[in-house]
Amino acid sequence: MRDAVHDAVVDLLVIGEINAAIPKIAEKAGVNPTSVYRRWGSREQLLLDAAVTRLRATSPIPDTGSLRDDLLGWAEGVERAMSDPRGQILLRALVATLGPEKEPLEHLRARGEDLQAALDRATARGEPAPSVDDVLDFVLAPLYLRVLFRRPVEPGTGALLVERLLNSL
Amino acid sequence: MRDAVHDAVVDLLVIGEINAAIPKIAEKAGVNPTSVYRRWGSREQLLLDAAVTRLRATSPIPDTGSLRDDLLGWAEGVERAMSDPRGQILLRALVATLGPEKEPLEHLRARGEDLQAALDRATARGEPAPSVDDVLDFVLAPLYLRVLFRRPVEPGTGALLVERLLNSL
Repeated sequence: MRDAVHDAVVDLLVIGEINAAIPKIAEKAGVNPTSVYRRWGSREQLLLDAAVTRLRATSPIPDTGSLRDDLLGWAEGVERAMSDPRGQILLRALVATLGPEKEPLEHLRARGEDLQAALDRATARGEPAPSVDDVLDFVLAPLYLRVLFRRPVEPGTGALLVERLLNSL
Repeated sequence: MRDAVHDAVVDLLVIGEINAAIPKIAEKAGVNPTSVYRRWGSREQLLLDAAVTRLRATSPIPDTGSLRDDLLGWAEGVERAMSDPRGQILLRALVATLGPEKEPLEHLRARGEDLQAALDRATARGEPAPSVDDVLDFVLAPLYLRVLFRRPVEPGTGALLVERLLNSL
């Protein structure tokens, strides 16, 4: 059910229905609106869950045995998602839903934990590792801001940003 | 008139009226709606103009005779604006208005030109200077993304990001 509802949210976003209410989303997903309310509580929580889950799925962090290659693999996925209209729409929906109200950031924590795990593996191998904040500042922020400000994401940007981060260590 | 209309837009955003239409904005500004339509054409163009003008005013780039001090002065202004609920609301409104339609980016060009002027002054003095894109990637993107993802902007973040940029040269 979770997948079907996420699909419905993304499909509605893609056709410009950024304010679709739960009954419409449930109808498109072929599920009972009551189940959607019970599981997610509100349209905002559902949108956050769908956007973070789907964006996270576009850029898994590989376990290659080298921090450089782990980060390059991840950044390539982020770059690909940010070059794709569906990824761009999900990021815009995420940012629009995050503010200015004070929703809990539960949904974002999982992505930070993915990165932390890769950094912990590097530390355990004796490699120098940045903090999660440094990864977000050096790599994710520039890619996301290009999309939000509608500047082009040139191929290779993710790799360039990762090299810059590692050079700073 | 431009100032009064910008004030009205910001005041409405602050009280949560993020979708206020032109007649309501004009009424609050005490001007004729027809003049607003004539000058800005649409609610979106007006919002972009108000957000960019006001955000730009919060972080002028000083001409100190040193690129480091120019950038530190500017980044401090950006940091201050991003720690202020009014600045945060303006950034959210700007991002929400920018997409996913294809508005011209006229409004953003002026801010890039401010930065380019500071970088050109540094080059003329023989100082090493980054590109405008580097300044956006290293300094603006991390500050803006903290606000958009509702992470705290710690005091001194702007200065830290500027030092990082200059160390990379």
